[in-house]
Amino acid sequence: MRFSTETLKGFTIAILSKAGYEGADAALFADSLIAANERGVASHGITRLRTYAKRLASGVVDKDAHIEILNSADTFLLVDGHNAMGVRICRETLDVCMARAKKHGTCFAAVRGGNHFGTGAFHALYGAQQGMITFALSNTSPCVAPVGGRQAILGTNPMAVAIPSRKYGALVLDMATCTVAQGKVILAGKEGKKIPLGWAIGPDGAPTDDPAQALKGAMLPFGGPKGYGISLIIEVLCSALSGAFMSPDTKSFWNDFENPQNLGFFLGTMDIAQLTDYETFLTRADEIYDRIKESPRAPGVETIYIPGEIEKRSEEKAAAEGIEIGQGVYQDLVLLAQEYGVDAGLLQEMA
Amino acid sequence: MRFSTETLKGFTIAILSKAGYEGADAALFADSLIAANERGVASHGITRLRTYAKRLASGVVDKDAHIEILNSADTFLLVDGHNAMGVRICRETLDVCMARAKKHGTCFAAVRGGNHFGTGAFHALYGAQQGMITFALSNTSPCVAPVGGRQAILGTNPMAVAIPSRKYGALVLDMATCTVAQGKVILAGKEGKKIPLGWAIGPDGAPTDDPAQALKGAMLPFGGPKGYGISLIIEVLCSALSGAFMSPDTKSFWNDFENPQNLGFFLGTMDIAQLTDYETFLTRADEIYDRIKESPRAPGVETIYIPGEIEKRSEEKAAAEGIEIGQGVYQDLVLLAQEYGVDAGLLQEMA
Repeated sequence: MRFSTETLKGFTIAILSKAGYEGADAALFADSLIAANERGVASHGITRLRTYAKRLASGVVDKDAHIEILNSADTFLLVDGHNAMGVRICRETLDVCMARAKKHGTCFAAVRGGNHFGTGAFHALYGAQQGMITFALSNTSPCVAPVGGRQAILGTNPMAVAIPSRKYGALVLDMATCTVAQGKVILAGKEGKKIPLGWAIGPDGAPTDDPAQALKGAMLPFGGPKGYGISLIIEVLCSALSGAFMSPDTKSFWNDFENPQNLGFFLGTMDIAQLTDYETFLTRADEIYDRIKESPRAPGVETIYIPGEIEKRSEEKAAAEGIEIGQGVYQDLVLLAQEYGVDAGLLQEMA
Repeated sequence: MRFSTETLKGFTIAILSKAGYEGADAALFADSLIAANERGVASHGITRLRTYAKRLASGVVDKDAHIEILNSADTFLLVDGHNAMGVRICRETLDVCMARAKKHGTCFAAVRGGNHFGTGAFHALYGAQQGMITFALSNTSPCVAPVGGRQAILGTNPMAVAIPSRKYGALVLDMATCTVAQGKVILAGKEGKKIPLGWAIGPDGAPTDDPAQALKGAMLPFGGPKGYGISLIIEVLCSALSGAFMSPDTKSFWNDFENPQNLGFFLGTMDIAQLTDYETFLTRADEIYDRIKESPRAPGVETIYIPGEIEKRSEEKAAAEGIEIGQGVYQDLVLLAQEYGVDAGLLQEMA
């Protein structure tokens, strides 16, 4: 089943409205949620609407809260998100960061009192579209063991970076710092398949190819000690700087509707035009991407991609052909509509 | 053979003096070079003195040059290193960045006209020791293929980050963005050993375990597409922003004594005290490290390390017991002393 972006956003806004979240706030959130579907990251898309709506309806997220800046430095901000929706916290913080960067060159912010910010790419791209190199990091619920450990004490600690490009839209790297999403282990378990060694460890700390053991144990950082180091730096930037919880103390997005998550973010923008001629930068950066894309390919490889290029192609396809939604997700959305008293007929398939 | 730090620094300064590099400049460079030996990174230590001295003596590096700031933004600087020694460029740039960060909160700089900066850890630690979260990135000569490619078009593009700690000195991550140093492939070739699949590809772009094929081909980014993305971001920050050469156009540190390298750096500092109470930050960060180090260990693991901890232990050992130098390196240093008219007796072993 295929739906237009507008249909899915309209449905999202209708549900959120019943959960008490309306107007520009709901529109921004719907943009961020459906952007994940458009970019081919369905795991972070409309399939999560049920949980977001429940978090708003239950009051575990403060739907009326706005950010507060707690210090007076020009370009290094301590921000309290006051338990608002993560997407709104990031948008408000980045708007301040961009204004400061336009004046001073750069601005970074450590944020506490956060809730799941969706995909980091949405926030990083927002800055890149305004000529800023933009960073969006978050800590998360724990599921990754440090190198040498066997307890899931680090979050997936994602990092998104976007850099403006004239020819490619933007370079967008949006990655968790673990090997693969834990969802892939859950899926392998459901399908009775093994997982590759190196993804995860069992509760004894030994490498495992058994999804059940992996889920009792921990995921591993990507790239060994290097990925572990990056994950730990993200943890410190997000929690120690801001005073947010460390990953193992954060509350669950999925299961806890009583206690605020208190995630930490680290957001930042750098205004290219303050450093150099913006058009010259775009030409130079595109030349790098061109040279890489035109370099000789490995056997069987059709295209060398720059980070974010596959997601941009997915966006273009979604604009032309709509977004594909599986039967299971569709039926859950129909149920959700009934539960919130929304007309399921809003979910009109594309012609 | 074991030598004190002071002996090796004194010898380094004596050689540099004959190459026309003296006083505080030579002392700073000697500090950076021997710091690599102290931290157990002998590959970047005194074994490279011959090449640095030749670069100074030949004039391919401008021994008298200083940095120039080319724009007027407060916290996002365009710096021309004017082909000075890389260590001096980084020190001068970081001094400006730290002064700006003390005033505004953060400061970052894109630098062109650079020469090899030694270990990024030396620069990152310099900032961390003054209470700043500090970043030091560089592009380099090309030796890494993009994911899907088979040409070495990216540099090893190292990234160093240091974060102050009360209990652990600092968290220091200093890593190349390729799987392993190409030096390990060269060593395996000399010893007639295979290399693990995944380190490198042959000239046909296929994975290889043959060091000779790997050296004709390319190293791979660490961590697959994630490491490739990080390497590419470092490339853009170091070269496209500053106007330095892209990695494949930079000139060789080892073999080119006529054309300046024109490397690019990306350096930055964030003044923790501008954002929050510094002592509170140190307490929170150390709590993260403690919790990780005290978490259950994998089988056979004695200690979970935080990044930089092994290197700090090596420093402590070097201070107590001196720095071990192999016969091959020692004999090369004796030759070097003869070539530059320096008394080889300066290289006095520790009692």
